[in-house]
Amino acid sequence: MKKMKFKPINFFEKLSKFEEHWSPKIIGEMNDYQLKLVKIQGHFTWHDHRDTDEVFIVLEGEMSIDFRDGRVDLSANEMFIVPRGKEHKPHAEKECRILVIEPKGVVNTGDVESELTARNDVWI
Amino acid sequence: MKKMKFKPINFFEKLSKFEEHWSPKIIGEMNDYQLKLVKIQGHFTWHDHRDTDEVFIVLEGEMSIDFRDGRVDLSANEMFIVPRGKEHKPHAEKECRILVIEPKGVVNTGDVESELTARNDVWI
Repeated sequence: MKKMKFKPINFFEKLSKFEEHWSPKIIGEMNDYQLKLVKIQGHFTWHDHRDTDEVFIVLEGEMSIDFRDGRVDLSANEMFIVPRGKEHKPHAEKECRILVIEPKGVVNTGDVESELTARNDVWI
Repeated sequence: MKKMKFKPINFFEKLSKFEEHWSPKIIGEMNDYQLKLVKIQGHFTWHDHRDTDEVFIVLEGEMSIDFRDGRVDLSANEMFIVPRGKEHKPHAEKECRILVIEPKGVVNTGDVESELTARNDVWI
């Protein structure tokens, strides 16, 4: 059994610890999945994750996800699950704070190497 | 690829669709994991999940989780991940609304059969 601290993980306290955009920070692990906070602003790159679905939960602000055949707009307390293999491009006009859930080891830009590709496994 | 609706899942809109306590309602699936809304009030039963960690995210209200060797108190926008095999007893004085994430097929009371054991796989 993992060693455990009896301390809640507060999303906004954790969000106050970094400023970069498009740079996921891990705040917890459930089995082989990770929960990551991300601050986003502007447009991300088109990409997909061949092997996994991806959960987006908006904590604060507004964001959109473009697909080749549609688009979804998300506000705080809304969630969207991007199916595996589905090309998507997240974007936000103003800074938006989100929680992303996906398996350990998933690269933020999928198979697309770009200047937006973030270092993996950064905990806060 | 799963068939997809371009529509966000709004936690509070979904929460308005049911009233029962301790009765998880599925709002989404990521791979073989499920995201479930639960309204809780009063004390749940002691139990554990032998094979999986379990994520608790508080959306509204306050809850606590007792462990045999400690306790954690959670408010809105706070999260706790209960490690696999760790006995726990969630409780809330007033109604609290939470999001739970765990693998498909997990029974809410673990290996303990009780009147609180909820029907699985109820979608809203």
